Amino acid sequence: MPPELAQVAQLDHDRTDRRGYPEAVYCQHKSPAQVAAIARELVERGSPTLFTRADAARADAVLSVAPEAFHDAEAGLLAWPPSPPDPSGGLVVVAAAGTSDLPVAREAQLTATYLGRRAELVMDVGVAGLHRVLGRLDLLREASVVVVVAGMDGALPSVVAGLVRAPVVAVPTSVGYGAAFEGLTALLTMLNSCAPGVSVVNIDNGYGAGHLAAQISEGR
Amino acid sequence: MPPELAQVAQLDHDRTDRRGYPEAVYCQHKSPAQVAAIARELVERGSPTLFTRADAARADAVLSVAPEAFHDAEAGLLAWPPSPPDPSGGLVVVAAAGTSDLPVAREAQLTATYLGRRAELVMDVGVAGLHRVLGRLDLLREASVVVVVAGMDGALPSVVAGLVRAPVVAVPTSVGYGAAFEGLTALLTMLNSCAPGVSVVNIDNGYGAGHLAAQISEGR
Amino acid sequence: MPPELAQVAQLDHDRTDRRGYPEAVYCQHKSPAQVAAIARELVERGSPTLFTRADAARADAVLSVAPEAFHDAEAGLLAWPPSPPDPSGGLVVVAAAGTSDLPVAREAQLTATYLGRRAELVMDVGVAGLHRVLGRLDLLREASVVVVVAGMDGALPSVVAGLVRAPVVAVPTSVGYGAAFEGLTALLTMLNSCAPGVSVVNIDNGYGAGHLAAQISEGR
Amino acid sequence: MPPELAQVAQLDHDRTDRRGYPEAVYCQHKSPAQVAAIARELVERGSPTLFTRADAARADAVLSVAPEAFHDAEAGLLAWPPSPPDPSGGLVVVAAAGTSDLPVAREAQLTATYLGRRAELVMDVGVAGLHRVLGRLDLLREASVVVVVAGMDGALPSVVAGLVRAPVVAVPTSVGYGAAFEGLTALLTMLNSCAPGVSVVNIDNGYGAGHLAAQISEGR
Amino acid sequence: MPPELAQVAQLDHDRTDRRGYPEAVYCQHKSPAQVAAIARELVERGSPTLFTRADAARADAVLSVAPEAFHDAEAGLLAWPPSPPDPSGGLVVVAAAGTSDLPVAREAQLTATYLGRRAELVMDVGVAGLHRVLGRLDLLREASVVVVVAGMDGALPSVVAGLVRAPVVAVPTSVGYGAAFEGLTALLTMLNSCAPGVSVVNIDNGYGAGHLAAQISEGR
Amino acid sequence: MPPELAQVAQLDHDRTDRRGYPEAVYCQHKSPAQVAAIARELVERGSPTLFTRADAARADAVLSVAPEAFHDAEAGLLAWPPSPPDPSGGLVVVAAAGTSDLPVAREAQLTATYLGRRAELVMDVGVAGLHRVLGRLDLLREASVVVVVAGMDGALPSVVAGLVRAPVVAVPTSVGYGAAFEGLTALLTMLNSCAPGVSVVNIDNGYGAGHLAAQISEGR
Amino acid sequence: MPPELAQVAQLDHDRTDRRGYPEAVYCQHKSPAQVAAIARELVERGSPTLFTRADAARADAVLSVAPEAFHDAEAGLLAWPPSPPDPSGGLVVVAAAGTSDLPVAREAQLTATYLGRRAELVMDVGVAGLHRVLGRLDLLREASVVVVVAGMDGALPSVVAGLVRAPVVAVPTSVGYGAAFEGLTALLTMLNSCAPGVSVVNIDNGYGAGHLAAQISEGR
Amino acid sequence: MPPELAQVAQLDHDRTDRRGYPEAVYCQHKSPAQVAAIARELVERGSPTLFTRADAARADAVLSVAPEAFHDAEAGLLAWPPSPPDPSGGLVVVAAAGTSDLPVAREAQLTATYLGRRAELVMDVGVAGLHRVLGRLDLLREASVVVVVAGMDGALPSVVAGLVRAPVVAVPTSVGYGAAFEGLTALLTMLNSCAPGVSVVNIDNGYGAGHLAAQISEGR
Repeated sequence: MPPELAQVAQLDHDRTDRRGYPEAVYCQHKSPAQVAAIARELVERGSPTLFTRADAARADAVLSVAPEAFHDAEAGLLAWPPSPPDPSGGLVVVAAAGTSDLPVAREAQLTATYLGRRAELVMDVGVAGLHRVLGRLDLLREASVVVVVAGMDGALPSVVAGLVRAPVVAVPTSVGYGAAFEGLTALLTMLNSCAPGVSVVNIDNGYGAGHLAAQISEGR
Repeated sequence: MPPELAQVAQLDHDRTDRRGYPEAVYCQHKSPAQVAAIARELVERGSPTLFTRADAARADAVLSVAPEAFHDAEAGLLAWPPSPPDPSGGLVVVAAAGTSDLPVAREAQLTATYLGRRAELVMDVGVAGLHRVLGRLDLLREASVVVVVAGMDGALPSVVAGLVRAPVVAVPTSVGYGAAFEGLTALLTMLNSCAPGVSVVNIDNGYGAGHLAAQISEGR
Repeated sequence: MPPELAQVAQLDHDRTDRRGYPEAVYCQHKSPAQVAAIARELVERGSPTLFTRADAARADAVLSVAPEAFHDAEAGLLAWPPSPPDPSGGLVVVAAAGTSDLPVAREAQLTATYLGRRAELVMDVGVAGLHRVLGRLDLLREASVVVVVAGMDGALPSVVAGLVRAPVVAVPTSVGYGAAFEGLTALLTMLNSCAPGVSVVNIDNGYGAGHLAAQISEGR
Repeated sequence: MPPELAQVAQLDHDRTDRRGYPEAVYCQHKSPAQVAAIARELVERGSPTLFTRADAARADAVLSVAPEAFHDAEAGLLAWPPSPPDPSGGLVVVAAAGTSDLPVAREAQLTATYLGRRAELVMDVGVAGLHRVLGRLDLLREASVVVVVAGMDGALPSVVAGLVRAPVVAVPTSVGYGAAFEGLTALLTMLNSCAPGVSVVNIDNGYGAGHLAAQISEGR
Repeated sequence: MPPELAQVAQLDHDRTDRRGYPEAVYCQHKSPAQVAAIARELVERGSPTLFTRADAARADAVLSVAPEAFHDAEAGLLAWPPSPPDPSGGLVVVAAAGTSDLPVAREAQLTATYLGRRAELVMDVGVAGLHRVLGRLDLLREASVVVVVAGMDGALPSVVAGLVRAPVVAVPTSVGYGAAFEGLTALLTMLNSCAPGVSVVNIDNGYGAGHLAAQISEGR
Repeated sequence: MPPELAQVAQLDHDRTDRRGYPEAVYCQHKSPAQVAAIARELVERGSPTLFTRADAARADAVLSVAPEAFHDAEAGLLAWPPSPPDPSGGLVVVAAAGTSDLPVAREAQLTATYLGRRAELVMDVGVAGLHRVLGRLDLLREASVVVVVAGMDGALPSVVAGLVRAPVVAVPTSVGYGAAFEGLTALLTMLNSCAPGVSVVNIDNGYGAGHLAAQISEGR
Repeated sequence: MPPELAQVAQLDHDRTDRRGYPEAVYCQHKSPAQVAAIARELVERGSPTLFTRADAARADAVLSVAPEAFHDAEAGLLAWPPSPPDPSGGLVVVAAAGTSDLPVAREAQLTATYLGRRAELVMDVGVAGLHRVLGRLDLLREASVVVVVAGMDGALPSVVAGLVRAPVVAVPTSVGYGAAFEGLTALLTMLNSCAPGVSVVNIDNGYGAGHLAAQISEGR
Repeated sequence: MPPELAQVAQLDHDRTDRRGYPEAVYCQHKSPAQVAAIARELVERGSPTLFTRADAARADAVLSVAPEAFHDAEAGLLAWPPSPPDPSGGLVVVAAAGTSDLPVAREAQLTATYLGRRAELVMDVGVAGLHRVLGRLDLLREASVVVVVAGMDGALPSVVAGLVRAPVVAVPTSVGYGAAFEGLTALLTMLNSCAPGVSVVNIDNGYGAGHLAAQISEGR
């Protein structure tokens, strides 16, 4: 058996393995009935699972099957089983520019938490009031990785990356209007950050950022 | 004669008047011969003039007619007569994020100078090194208007507008690569500034920003 | 203590100071309950505040806490306390191309008013009927700054800037259809104005334009 | 033979017929050798022809075959035979916003001329100086159709269409920089003209505008 | 009084004059109450008027004031007085690619009719079934101007312009999905027509096309 | 060994197999030296190869190694060995709208030829002259697959797909100017074809279209 | 009668002929009443018909006229008569990346089925879990044509085309969020596939892909 | 002294500190003379420095000052002093889809190397030939972080992220043509990766990816 075949044989196993991490079910394009069916199967199998982008109807679908699940309505996230694993690895800090960015920031924080990290949230540190972000430098510099969440001009990751040593995962949000183009402007700003150490995920992708932050801070 | 007619009759006069400001000749789409012809006519007429976006060939064309003209090669700008008017009005400060933004920043500074303002240039104050912009706060706060020039992520105007009382004129530059899209990203960032008091001109439009800054700081 | 540190220490104070200007609460991404909570806190603190982009539900939330607040439903704006400061500084004129641009124009006018300026509104002066804008030249030329509000082709700022000496703050609106692209076309037109003295704010950003106009006309 | 077949049989004939108009050869994507070959064939056949977008090398190719051809280097246009037909139909007026728009405007004027119209050119009537366009109203109102050529903000067609009764054919040009996006902004502005009676052709398409103007003014 | 002033004095009169054409009220961004108020004023003044983009509520607003007005629900158009002027000038033919393009096509046809032209509608002549458009060649060739309405690939104007002598006014529609981008694709196709004699109006702008067609066919 | 592993083991073999088809070397981003090195290796190995997008320098590089190779300068294509395989499968017809589309059309035709098909080229059948495409219907209807190559408005595939039974592979080209956006408009038009049976490849991708056509017509 | 005329005379017949394929009625822009009327006419005529993009109301409209019609709610498709033709030609395999792509994939499968092919559906074979697609290689390699349906990153067609010999028809879907831009990203990815043998249809165009697949696999 | 002031005082020190990492000089927008001047200053100061995006002229400028510097022409990168630090931290693997992606991949590898990591390069593992990437799984799975470099369809990061546990830094390249839009398509694909654990940097930003990879793998 040539070596690459042996490796492919492990594909499935590895994916499960990487996931000590829970499964993730993206609820947005699924009907409540589909969500309930998937939830039932995963709970019966005993697989730890995150349900993301769940509105009220989809959250109810999960809770009808797994009433003990953790539910954060603002983040649109449910977790089963409700208790996250004991935290390990380095600290994840999630910094959000404005209060409107909270749902995405909270999704990132909760995802990192349920993937086994200690994760702190720093709110309302937009660049138009520098004293606010400067006032949180101690915590930001303690982090193994900083997730920075911002809409509108998306300028915060450049500022944060200039202040910390850790890698920065930038999450543009669809907050804004007009030439914010539903997050496109913040996305472009972040991709052009003048500070090294910044990488970017999709608009409003708090789950992806939290997942990546957990990977980066694993084993630190 | 109905009142609006009287006003129209003054159109031409008013435009000249507003211009105590010099004429401006945009050289980029004109041949050296055309530029020389225009320069000759204006010099003969005695009209103070700025020649903008003049490369070496077009600068030579101007200088062949008006060898005494002021010439700044980096800014691509010539001025005739060479001496700017005595400064009046409030201080204009031009802040540039990086050294690559210098040609545009210098064009803005010189334009404001030749429209009669005292104009200072602050270089290399990008947001990835906040201590640099904080180190120039005294000067920035002395300004009647701040012109902020930045490419790449275009984040500097948001930071500056949060630090000063004066209006901020933001100039995106085409500095950058890839998803900078030749200044489009910086332009969009600036339009979405999370700080009030910021307005934006076209990409690389140092002349327009300097002109506007001179208007805003007039009579202060 | 090095000089830049002393300056940072004043950051918060300065921001308050610049604002003799009221606080602004952008209501669009906040729930009525959040708006009411913020309004309560600000009123108790006695901070003059503008509530912008407030629909009926969010306006009711403010009024439930501060029934004496000023409310302009068309502009989606509330102000507390209801009386603007005594006007000072130069005149602000807001010119709108069409009746559909009125909400944005009115938001600009009211913002300038509550930041302490005398602010006049000139309606329905689109470029397809030049006699209308020419008929208002006296008022336009009296202004320290002109805010020009237009959707569709966004051509009005170029025309106005050719007629007045004051700086022009251009506000594109999302009025139009098809290739108006929800204000993008007007935005681009304004950024490419062939007249110097024009700068641009975000689409539909009447608040930003009014704020900037108040800054520009301050102390004139 | 069913009626639509009879019509198809006339296709070729009709096309020739509609063209009392000359053939047009678009030179830009052809080699000088190809251009010469086509020119030779057409001249031998005696077909009146316009050669458009011809740079120096392609113009030489035409002239090597037909030395008597008319050549306008600025418009990049050659015509054979050199004399246009006697003018008939209504007057075509071509109005250009700035001197940089001259090549496109001249292409439109010459095209209309060689399709048999009297065609006048009005230069440098940009909207930032309204007195200039108002000073040419007599001529503009004499036209059966007005071709309006403008780059940058593309605002002129809206102003002209508000001043004349005739249809306006708007031609955006690639003149400008930055957010002019090589004519896209002027194109969008013109498509959103707030004045009825405006239609638009492709960026820099002076030939198309002149052709259309000749069709509209035919038989008036 | 310099000549251009005399001309400006006639601005208003000329606009009215050009309009033997009725006034047009664009209803989409107006409230039913505003529409009713405008309708009342125009009817009292006796001004012939077209109300465009009127949904059921806005149509009712007009009809409450002018119950005798003509109303075409599919085109979203009302006309007062209900009878169009006696037709004059050349024939307008409106050709629509598919049944989904009917509302826009009908708006163009009715606009031309109420501006005083004979206007015929040819439906369902998309380019995927050439025999259909070839079957209507007699009528198409009788027209002084052809308005071609198409969504999706927007290919019909190129085909029609190759078959007729008259100018073609192309109207892209927002019919389609996915990469049709709500009419943008059809718009771009039409701007790049490989047949001369085509000009383009905004997406879904049946009114503008009908108005322009009436101008082009006037006095033929 | 689980079944999917057995399949993976065949990956490499299968790819070679599918290719009875020759290898393809895309020359555009490679230096002449790199191209020569690759050519040497392939010729020594005896692998039939197509070299695509080869300008003069890269063609010389190939010919220096394999002087007997077939070279078509217009298509920028070389083939080694110079003789194509005996044709099998169904007929491929390549139809091009204009002469400027010839390089891409020829690349498609030659690719299909060297992949073992009989491939015919039909030139200059743009939709503005329907009689030309109608005059080639016999050949078009004989094809197993039609490759349609067009720039500018990209309308030809819709027309052809309405006339033939075979699948149509549409190739947009970068021919055009202004709002052609280097092929983007033709691409979008083709994706929105109102005729079923059309699919699209990348702009100027004659190689891909010819390859796909060979696959579709294989074994017919 | 010249040869091209004879061909045109067969246009209508040929189209019917090509269709042994059923008619298709695109329901999305039609009212339920219009759909019912069309259904009635087609059923009375006895024409086999597919109704695509039919929501509940439009499906009811069809069923009210033809209660025996086949209806697949997920695909939004109805077929009359309900039984597809006996399958002929090669096998069509439809592969979908994720469960959210199912409606489009099912529309493609059913279309191919009702055009007379055997069509298999392979679900949930996204590239992030390669073992899944590798596990279905036997079936994929049995196909005459593979339709690949994917949203988000649209990467699946490149992977599949590298594994099979048959042509691949790629269908981008609007599944995703943020920078997925409603399918635009998947569309662009597919157009740039690094594997030859891939062509692309419009976003969410399952009908078009199924139709094309049926054409390609006809007579194999 | 309030706590945030103490932190700001450390800004400069921290930045130096984070950089045990060398300085980086982006050469693209600087003249050779400027590059030489900067190089001289840094070498005299003894600061380890990377010079990125250096073409031949700018490389010569560096080498004229620091002839002992390391120079990789393909990557456009120079390093002084020439020896990288002894490697520490986890392994960085850089995987490139095609040979045209090599310059960017090499820039990432060298940057990580000079920031102190062991960095391996894996070439030519595009998704159209899965066996190639599967054949390198052992190395890929050994990495602490994988940098994936790809142009055209940008599909490789999704495949790699599904095969490894480590975070993936995706770098789109400008390799491709037509609808690749100079890297925009690959950028969008990567942002929409269906596999978690992927983040993205700017187009062609090998330096940024290598820097980030060094940060992520630090201390592992």
